[in-house]
Amino acid sequence: MAQMTKAEISRRVAEQVSSTRISSRLAELARFGGRSDGGVNRQAYSPDDRQARNYLARWADELGLTTFTDPIGNQFFRLTPAGKSLAAPAWTTGSHLDSQPTGGRFDGAAGIVAAFETITALQNCSIQLAHPVEIVSWANEEGSRFPPSCMGSMTYVGRIRVEDYQWLQDAQGNRLSDELYATLASTQRGRNRAFGTPMIGYLELHIEQGPILDQEGIPVGILEGIQGCRWFYITINGAARHAGTTPMHHRSDAVREAVAAISALHQALEDVTGLLKLTVGRIDTHPGKANTVAERVQFTIDIRHPDEEVLERAETAISSIVESSMVRCRADVARAVAHKPVHFDRGLQQRLAGAAADLRIPTTTMMSGAFHDAMNLTGFCPTAMIFVPSHGGISHHPDEFTRLADLTAGVRVLAATVAQCATATE
Amino acid sequence: MAQMTKAEISRRVAEQVSSTRISSRLAELARFGGRSDGGVNRQAYSPDDRQARNYLARWADELGLTTFTDPIGNQFFRLTPAGKSLAAPAWTTGSHLDSQPTGGRFDGAAGIVAAFETITALQNCSIQLAHPVEIVSWANEEGSRFPPSCMGSMTYVGRIRVEDYQWLQDAQGNRLSDELYATLASTQRGRNRAFGTPMIGYLELHIEQGPILDQEGIPVGILEGIQGCRWFYITINGAARHAGTTPMHHRSDAVREAVAAISALHQALEDVTGLLKLTVGRIDTHPGKANTVAERVQFTIDIRHPDEEVLERAETAISSIVESSMVRCRADVARAVAHKPVHFDRGLQQRLAGAAADLRIPTTTMMSGAFHDAMNLTGFCPTAMIFVPSHGGISHHPDEFTRLADLTAGVRVLAATVAQCATATE
Repeated sequence: MAQMTKAEISRRVAEQVSSTRISSRLAELARFGGRSDGGVNRQAYSPDDRQARNYLARWADELGLTTFTDPIGNQFFRLTPAGKSLAAPAWTTGSHLDSQPTGGRFDGAAGIVAAFETITALQNCSIQLAHPVEIVSWANEEGSRFPPSCMGSMTYVGRIRVEDYQWLQDAQGNRLSDELYATLASTQRGRNRAFGTPMIGYLELHIEQGPILDQEGIPVGILEGIQGCRWFYITINGAARHAGTTPMHHRSDAVREAVAAISALHQALEDVTGLLKLTVGRIDTHPGKANTVAERVQFTIDIRHPDEEVLERAETAISSIVESSMVRCRADVARAVAHKPVHFDRGLQQRLAGAAADLRIPTTTMMSGAFHDAMNLTGFCPTAMIFVPSHGGISHHPDEFTRLADLTAGVRVLAATVAQCATATE
Repeated sequence: MAQMTKAEISRRVAEQVSSTRISSRLAELARFGGRSDGGVNRQAYSPDDRQARNYLARWADELGLTTFTDPIGNQFFRLTPAGKSLAAPAWTTGSHLDSQPTGGRFDGAAGIVAAFETITALQNCSIQLAHPVEIVSWANEEGSRFPPSCMGSMTYVGRIRVEDYQWLQDAQGNRLSDELYATLASTQRGRNRAFGTPMIGYLELHIEQGPILDQEGIPVGILEGIQGCRWFYITINGAARHAGTTPMHHRSDAVREAVAAISALHQALEDVTGLLKLTVGRIDTHPGKANTVAERVQFTIDIRHPDEEVLERAETAISSIVESSMVRCRADVARAVAHKPVHFDRGLQQRLAGAAADLRIPTTTMMSGAFHDAMNLTGFCPTAMIFVPSHGGISHHPDEFTRLADLTAGVRVLAATVAQCATATE
């Protein structure tokens, strides 16, 4: 094979990416756990998930890939160039198979199909690879049946241990350990893969799950990182009193003061840059009776921002705003969750941008608002992600939809970038 | 008996009112359904309620009164002056025996004990009565086991029919019809009393269940009426979106707009007279997840005021304030309950005030915030009520407490007023 320029490699691989094949592979996966409303319910380690796992192994067999499975059920499908050992680290791309109970066809599955399409395209254009390429299908990304989310990738990189979670039960009382065992026993597992087996780098394509690309009409987003997130549980303590007999000025009304605090938070944390996101998603009132002044209100706060320092300042502001909204009630602010912002590898971001430029595919840079398995890989190997548009920003819903043209553009950028990485000998 | 002035009648009857007897009768009743925390759980038609009913019938026998029971279980204990028929209408006073599940010793029971003390005092001072006097113990005032509240008095005056409610079941699946039958079968019923049997007038003593008398240090409140009440169910419809991926300006956040509406209501309906009461006691968020922008919020509004026109204007204001608080969500305002304000008989209020003046007992005039059986009697016969203080405004709670001196003062005013009424021959 004659020496090719990077742009030639990009174009040659991208030419082999087939929107027809992408569309049919997505439709095939959507059968496993398919809902009558067009959505997908394929929760982790369920019978539908097991069938879909075997389906991936069959695709891998057809493509001549080597299948590996690790003890938490992450699957790896490996393309090894001639002369390379089965143990040599690989450039890895993938996503997850599992869905929310009322999920769509694209969340996770798009990245799995993109990874298979990448390897198919690499094989079809006969480019000489310098490194192995692997597809990964991470187990239990959604965590909807067995929290936490991203369990497979967290376990693989050593952030959590499988022993810590095996006694978990789902809502029906099924144990994670039993469901994991049954999944591994009924799946075509191939070879064993040890947790922490090195990767050269990791690339993931995912749907945006937000409205930005769709609204701006751009098919591909190159992610700079994943914004940080903090959760707080706020409790406002007042006094339960009769709504008919208690004068207004004698009340310690937990609803009134909670509502004042939430309004003040929305005003004070308004951010003209649009980067800071504030969500109060749940409010509980006790005793929750129409004719009783509430003695206690609890509500959640979810804040997100790409900059850890801003999250820190926002936390201080939340405490002081809630406190200063109290007139006759007492407030308790407890931090429940904190995820630091994640920054993806700059070199990989440049390779993604370069490949997109080679293919004249428009891109924009952005931060992810949601968590993804790639978050856990950043401390493990060079990692990057691309987004494709979600129609109307809708996700975790049967109406979740990404136009085939957009998805194909994303897969072309992914495949071209993997080709750049896997052919590089430096 | 020599001709006495009204003031002499008041003083003569009031002298016979015994705080020792009031205290011991209250303690005796508190044994039926007594809770280990000092409170009372004596719900309507329960075995404890049945025992307490028989205890009242025993008191009545000891006093030589005639017992009547009607088909919903209201009990009547009658003192008939010599020469009067058992069918002649009576001046009636009483309250209710049943309690909330976590109730106190005073709510209802105070008015029953006051009624027995009134008849005991009338008997002991040997005043010649022109009219019969009756004690009434209304069934199922609380409605905590079988709603609606005030079932006994509503049925007696013909506002509801017993047939409409007999298939009701409590939380354990017990039918009202079965429990009512068992109650009537196990109670010393005396004679049958037909619904709607006329009364000359009705007087009720009740604890305030609010803080006003306690805070002002006044032992007796003379009620002008019961404020009106309207309930609304408000639904705010937005769109569920991912808290991490959805920019703030793309959100239709039902929590944010509900909170804005509630804050605006509290500001707009602020009433310097203190008469208008506004309570938002319950808020429900859907799907109620910390990381999801809420698609729907429902909340209750309870407004109370003595003037029906003000309630009407407040309803119009609520609709327009909620509507104008919407930015990207849609609001639905539904009226769930409406009770018109009740106004007590002016002549009876003057008799109560006159008797209190005779006895040099301080009083104030006030409106009731809570509902009482007397509400149903206003269209049936001249009706009035007095309140005695609730320590700290606490009620429907084991800590419910009224000082014996205050309760005795209230009973003296009641007994003197009943004496004025029952001796009047005009």
